[in-house]
Amino acid sequence: MLATARRRLFSAQAARWYGRAARDGRFKTLGRGDVERLRAMAAPETVLATEAVGGSADAAELEGFNVDWLSKYRGSSQLVLRPKTTGEVAEILRYCNSERIAVVPQGGNTGLVGGGVPVHDEVVLSLRNMNKVRGFDEVSGILVCDAGCVLEELDNYVAERGYTMPLDLGAKGSCHIGGNVAANAGGIRFLRYGSLHGSVLGLEAVLADGTVLDNISTLRKDNTGYDLKQLFIGSEGTLGVITGVSVVTPRRPSAVNVAVLGVPSYEGVQRAFRLARARCGEVLSAYEFWDASCMGAVLGHQGLKHPLAGEHPFYVLIETSGSNKAHDDEKLAALLEELLESGVVEDGALAQDESQIRRMWSMREGIPESLGRTGPTYKYDVSIPIPVLYDVVGDIARRLEDAGLYRAGDAARPVRLVCGYGHIGDGNLHLNIVADRFEDRITRVFEPFVYEWVASHRGSISAEHGIGQMKRDYLRYSKSPEMIAYMRRIKDVFDPNHILNPYKVL
Amino acid sequence: MLATARRRLFSAQAARWYGRAARDGRFKTLGRGDVERLRAMAAPETVLATEAVGGSADAAELEGFNVDWLSKYRGSSQLVLRPKTTGEVAEILRYCNSERIAVVPQGGNTGLVGGGVPVHDEVVLSLRNMNKVRGFDEVSGILVCDAGCVLEELDNYVAERGYTMPLDLGAKGSCHIGGNVAANAGGIRFLRYGSLHGSVLGLEAVLADGTVLDNISTLRKDNTGYDLKQLFIGSEGTLGVITGVSVVTPRRPSAVNVAVLGVPSYEGVQRAFRLARARCGEVLSAYEFWDASCMGAVLGHQGLKHPLAGEHPFYVLIETSGSNKAHDDEKLAALLEELLESGVVEDGALAQDESQIRRMWSMREGIPESLGRTGPTYKYDVSIPIPVLYDVVGDIARRLEDAGLYRAGDAARPVRLVCGYGHIGDGNLHLNIVADRFEDRITRVFEPFVYEWVASHRGSISAEHGIGQMKRDYLRYSKSPEMIAYMRRIKDVFDPNHILNPYKVL
Repeated sequence: MLATARRRLFSAQAARWYGRAARDGRFKTLGRGDVERLRAMAAPETVLATEAVGGSADAAELEGFNVDWLSKYRGSSQLVLRPKTTGEVAEILRYCNSERIAVVPQGGNTGLVGGGVPVHDEVVLSLRNMNKVRGFDEVSGILVCDAGCVLEELDNYVAERGYTMPLDLGAKGSCHIGGNVAANAGGIRFLRYGSLHGSVLGLEAVLADGTVLDNISTLRKDNTGYDLKQLFIGSEGTLGVITGVSVVTPRRPSAVNVAVLGVPSYEGVQRAFRLARARCGEVLSAYEFWDASCMGAVLGHQGLKHPLAGEHPFYVLIETSGSNKAHDDEKLAALLEELLESGVVEDGALAQDESQIRRMWSMREGIPESLGRTGPTYKYDVSIPIPVLYDVVGDIARRLEDAGLYRAGDAARPVRLVCGYGHIGDGNLHLNIVADRFEDRITRVFEPFVYEWVASHRGSISAEHGIGQMKRDYLRYSKSPEMIAYMRRIKDVFDPNHILNPYKVL
Repeated sequence: MLATARRRLFSAQAARWYGRAARDGRFKTLGRGDVERLRAMAAPETVLATEAVGGSADAAELEGFNVDWLSKYRGSSQLVLRPKTTGEVAEILRYCNSERIAVVPQGGNTGLVGGGVPVHDEVVLSLRNMNKVRGFDEVSGILVCDAGCVLEELDNYVAERGYTMPLDLGAKGSCHIGGNVAANAGGIRFLRYGSLHGSVLGLEAVLADGTVLDNISTLRKDNTGYDLKQLFIGSEGTLGVITGVSVVTPRRPSAVNVAVLGVPSYEGVQRAFRLARARCGEVLSAYEFWDASCMGAVLGHQGLKHPLAGEHPFYVLIETSGSNKAHDDEKLAALLEELLESGVVEDGALAQDESQIRRMWSMREGIPESLGRTGPTYKYDVSIPIPVLYDVVGDIARRLEDAGLYRAGDAARPVRLVCGYGHIGDGNLHLNIVADRFEDRITRVFEPFVYEWVASHRGSISAEHGIGQMKRDYLRYSKSPEMIAYMRRIKDVFDPNHILNPYKVL
């Protein structure tokens, strides 16, 4: 799978082209004594310490923990801890909190906003050694597992038992369920199964002072007091370290159909979506779109054959998932016929077997990597009301043209592509700008412009990727001063010394 | 509809058979001066004040605000405010907070745990005059409305536009959407559309100090900081007053089928559920069960005809909702045939038209009222793992028999019925004990026993009704001391003077 082939795409020199917060002097600089103490709390093979702090690892060994997978953000942690139990996590945090040592919790390190890597010398607390399924109820479909379980492995596990994980995303081969929850990941099944705020039933989280909040409920309904776990969903590791997750998994659909459509306009993409909802209703499980530029990048880099006979300005992937193949076939066939006859779409191809389904999906899922191979990519993940969702792509392209930095097909300009793809049903656009290199004169053209644009349309500056380091300065474009003030007070409640994932979110 | 006919079932003398918390002396006793000030903040017709505080209303006019609809809880508020705008709510709360006047927010007053009525002399802040739809997007199905809108009216409103509210419950004709959100209401569509934590997109809430938290997002995805609105969902008015709600509504299914089954055992109820999920999959929208005692009460009080030829120990109502009537008919018919042939169910009736669908639903929805007409009813709403869910009914019946208070069919004993009904798919049982009157010697037999029973099975002492006054002393059966300690700290953040809905939840 493409998803399992995630790796660093650019040289480390590219890291940190974004400005970063100055180191907070209230945090202790890790000493050899601290490392001695922390080392005693876990098995030796779970600790990576550089020589500077009395260990034997060289910097290269810590590279994969210090740099995010896009190589945009680079920290300089000297210590990586990979505890195996919730008790070890609690002991580590208790010590760090008492010593004011900053800590960055890390899952699969697949985030896109620099939320999972250190900014300075924070200790990296990796959850990768906490990767066991704790239990699965085959009647209710409720899964309880450690936070470090890899999403795709969990999906395989529940698939064998007739269920499916309620979320799926390109990074599934590397990302951890704990990181998914901490980031409130969305992805391609959101349309069907909704938000993690609905499907996560319980969490186990360790607070900065070592308190274990055991809220690992396996009940679908539980109205007993404030639903504290909800705060941890999407808090990006700043309120506590998620160590266990309970999630309700839907039954795995027995029939899956996928089609790719060629659409002449963004207006057509919307019209086709409305018809798909009306005709396929409850079996519609994905409705993804991408533009011709994304298609060009995918065809150029993934060795995939164009699924349709000709080129189109937009492409749509429709998926249905249901319990009765004959019924679903009939619904989808009727939809495709109507779309073609009415001219809403120009062409369409229906996958005939499992391998064609996989190829169509890998086309959509291969977009981020293909763009990355084309060049360093500025990525924005925004929510915008559907009718104007694609307008921002054109507006950004025009600004870059006006600045002399971009002209479609002109290889002499530093910006190569301005393109968009995403989840129409959720109003979620991934806006990507591919350049020769990350540089300030490019960034300045669309930042903060893109955030202002989104705010002026009452959108969200982060639909599903979170705030992390990247958007910390822009939170005010989506949240009021009162909301931000209360977020800070919540932070003070759970992490009064602010040791958890500093320089992020708030 | 039965649901619209909610009214007080017993005399006010029955109120407060549960013990209640002593009045907190830190709260100011309302004076004429306070009423003068508060009266100036809203239109005259929106204020109800008794003579004792300088008004002209008599106690009877405040009765409907002081007593819950089951007449179990009675407060003695002298002042009811029914503001028309969020600004008025903010002004009222700002004053009450500065004067330490306790306030109970009230929606449709349909709660079952005494959460929406005063315990002592708290000012009642009713949202019933805030009842406007603020906007509806016909493409996305996102509804924004005032908190005081009645659920059924909202459902009618969105139905005209092709959508359906994601929740439905017996009290729909009176309950407010704001109260639904504050209580995190579950109901009969939970199986299909999930929790309000997933479908509520945004809230407007006024905090105790008058701060308006404007988080009335209309975006399906918004990962910008902590999701504060989640705390208000299920907080029962103790953190702030919800004044506006944004909710995503699913498309209204064009085809609805309903069947009632007669089942010989609780084991059969579970087996039929598993088959229903497998065969009907994505169109299964409700799976409700009730026992023979509930059926007897309904037939005795609602003037309904038995839907099946004979009596059965258990009854199940199955509903499918989909986009294609022929497909759904085929799925449901195949299920019913399999259930009957395998002997899992003994008999079944499929509704042939809209009016039969309504009659079948009114049978299920009429249970609470029918039990209430049979006699004063002790109601417990619990989550229990499905396999042992119904066991608690038998265990409670045996305890009452052992105590000499109950024998099936023996009218000389004070307890008339011990029965159960609920939402199998959600693991949610409504356990009801109908007696001649509420009295301590009866209560003592099953309280706290029922909470201990639930806790010992890792269930929840409140699945969907909340904590309110009724279960405040029992919260510890479902939440750890650490969880409760952090709930208290959250309370301190949002309502440091604890003026909002005191004596409830925590």
